[in-house]
Amino acid sequence: MTLPYPATIVAKVKERAVLDAAKAAVARPEGSVERLVRLAGPDMAKVDALIVARMQSPVAVIPALAEHLIAAGGKRLRPLLAVAAARLAGSENDAFLKLAAAVEFIHTATLLHDDVVDGSQLRRGKVAAHLIWGAPSSVLVGDFLFARAFELMVETESMQALEILARASRVIAEGEVMQLTRSQDLNLGQEVYLEIIAAKTAELFAAAAEAGAVSAGADQARSDALRAYGLNLGLAFQLADDALDYGGATETLGKNAGDDFREGKATLPLLLAINRTPREADFWERVIGQREQTDTDFRRARELVVGSGALEATLDLAADYADRAKRVLDAFPASEWRTALEALADFAVSRRA
Amino acid sequence: MTLPYPATIVAKVKERAVLDAAKAAVARPEGSVERLVRLAGPDMAKVDALIVARMQSPVAVIPALAEHLIAAGGKRLRPLLAVAAARLAGSENDAFLKLAAAVEFIHTATLLHDDVVDGSQLRRGKVAAHLIWGAPSSVLVGDFLFARAFELMVETESMQALEILARASRVIAEGEVMQLTRSQDLNLGQEVYLEIIAAKTAELFAAAAEAGAVSAGADQARSDALRAYGLNLGLAFQLADDALDYGGATETLGKNAGDDFREGKATLPLLLAINRTPREADFWERVIGQREQTDTDFRRARELVVGSGALEATLDLAADYADRAKRVLDAFPASEWRTALEALADFAVSRRA
Repeated sequence: MTLPYPATIVAKVKERAVLDAAKAAVARPEGSVERLVRLAGPDMAKVDALIVARMQSPVAVIPALAEHLIAAGGKRLRPLLAVAAARLAGSENDAFLKLAAAVEFIHTATLLHDDVVDGSQLRRGKVAAHLIWGAPSSVLVGDFLFARAFELMVETESMQALEILARASRVIAEGEVMQLTRSQDLNLGQEVYLEIIAAKTAELFAAAAEAGAVSAGADQARSDALRAYGLNLGLAFQLADDALDYGGATETLGKNAGDDFREGKATLPLLLAINRTPREADFWERVIGQREQTDTDFRRARELVVGSGALEATLDLAADYADRAKRVLDAFPASEWRTALEALADFAVSRRA
Repeated sequence: MTLPYPATIVAKVKERAVLDAAKAAVARPEGSVERLVRLAGPDMAKVDALIVARMQSPVAVIPALAEHLIAAGGKRLRPLLAVAAARLAGSENDAFLKLAAAVEFIHTATLLHDDVVDGSQLRRGKVAAHLIWGAPSSVLVGDFLFARAFELMVETESMQALEILARASRVIAEGEVMQLTRSQDLNLGQEVYLEIIAAKTAELFAAAAEAGAVSAGADQARSDALRAYGLNLGLAFQLADDALDYGGATETLGKNAGDDFREGKATLPLLLAINRTPREADFWERVIGQREQTDTDFRRARELVVGSGALEATLDLAADYADRAKRVLDAFPASEWRTALEALADFAVSRRA
């Protein structure tokens, strides 16, 4: 940023006003991840211990790099989901703890590879690992964590859980490649966009919940229901994430707001804004089509995304998926776990980071 | 290369003379991979069909990139090993075919990631995939193949084979990271070097043979023996490979001779040569320590590696491991498969590419 100090302040205040207006326009249930975090606390403490124990290696750079990312926290949503699904399905063994740790390792591996692929600079509020240890180490430690995930799964002796998570890992890679090859396509349809985020993000949510259910011995109907919950939750999360890139502030995001824009990523808020602002075609072609961006272009893009209602439309769609997620939980009797998962679905959309 | 044409020719003739002299100095059993290739032909045709069928994906760039590498051939040594181990152990089902395909996918995934990590330009005589499709695609297609390997393993329903190959995948990643962090260490001891190649290369040979044996229902002693065969064969192969980088010609190697040298990789021929030519310390420090290389430095290094006997010592060690590999096969009665595996061990050392 080369703007003088006062102008930056003025711009920030203005942005904030625009965003608050957009947020105030719709009343959405607030949601909470806290309820689930509290309920799953004792299980998650064991999962965390497993994660720390199993990211160790005699090769020192591996735990160092893994810890950088894993200790930075994040919400541990995917292992939480595996735990909650197993508990909701009435688990009587603790195989789901290892599956939950495996799911977090798969997720961490994909984050490491993603950040290399995208050249991202921030992750979970810290400098991205590849900028500290180099891209080669990030690629290889990702491979280590991926393999370690499968070792953990083997220990559960659940061939069905292995099948679910091997398939998910493959689908995620397909989604990532699809995103890579289509990422700058300004004509990307909403359907293809949804297909991509279903694969690269929602599939692991779905698999985590399904594997948790299966390890608890849930019948087909219930493991299908939990899979559907995870899939819809994952879609809601990714849509909200893509909206946050245009509607959030870097300080709360833990990554740079505008990253997607700067990478020219064809996410839904952008695609909708392009569609709704035909008079800005030259601007979009320059900043996304040609990737010729100046420092002030993100601010302009953000105004168009918010002003055209594209941000809100994206959040509306996220809210739809969150509703679907909540509805499939009707297959389960009322319980603390079910209530916590319902609150999580709302949280996916209402969160600010 | 900026040398005028005639000088290049002169240099090539001189190099060839040096190398031929080095090779003629010891008589080693010629060995052959042909015998095993012929014997395993019908099985390998099925493995190849599986490989082609299971590298497909609706995301077009995945089969395109995978085919570039897989169709380029290579010797398919690792799946051959899985097939031979299963046959030697008297397999009566065909689970080993899927395991063999899975092993080739794991290997291909590591090659894709390796070439990105090393910035290699040639692989199997073709331009490295990352130079055509970009490093991001290579990383992600590697992830796809790795996941697909686990899907194939799940289909065999052998938890033991899954355990063996999950562990191997993790050990390989550890070996790669270890190599990455120690690769330019001119004081690397022979023991650490052997530890690295055991992990990054020999482990997959060992796991392929062990998994093949296990899938055939071999008892512990026989699956241990086949694992030991694979491990020793893998060490022999990697040692010979590292020797070939100083003793082979680009045309027959399918990759650039001198690649390891140019990357400053601390392989055994180099480590031994440095040790044996203390008066060249300044040269080694400049070309490896500082990585300041001119076009003619590889030729000089090659002369020192050959002249100091480092090349031969490396091949001697490779021959030792090949002998160990052959000896563990004594646990099995004489058979065509056993003879073919013995010839393969000799081939590991005598090959010229």
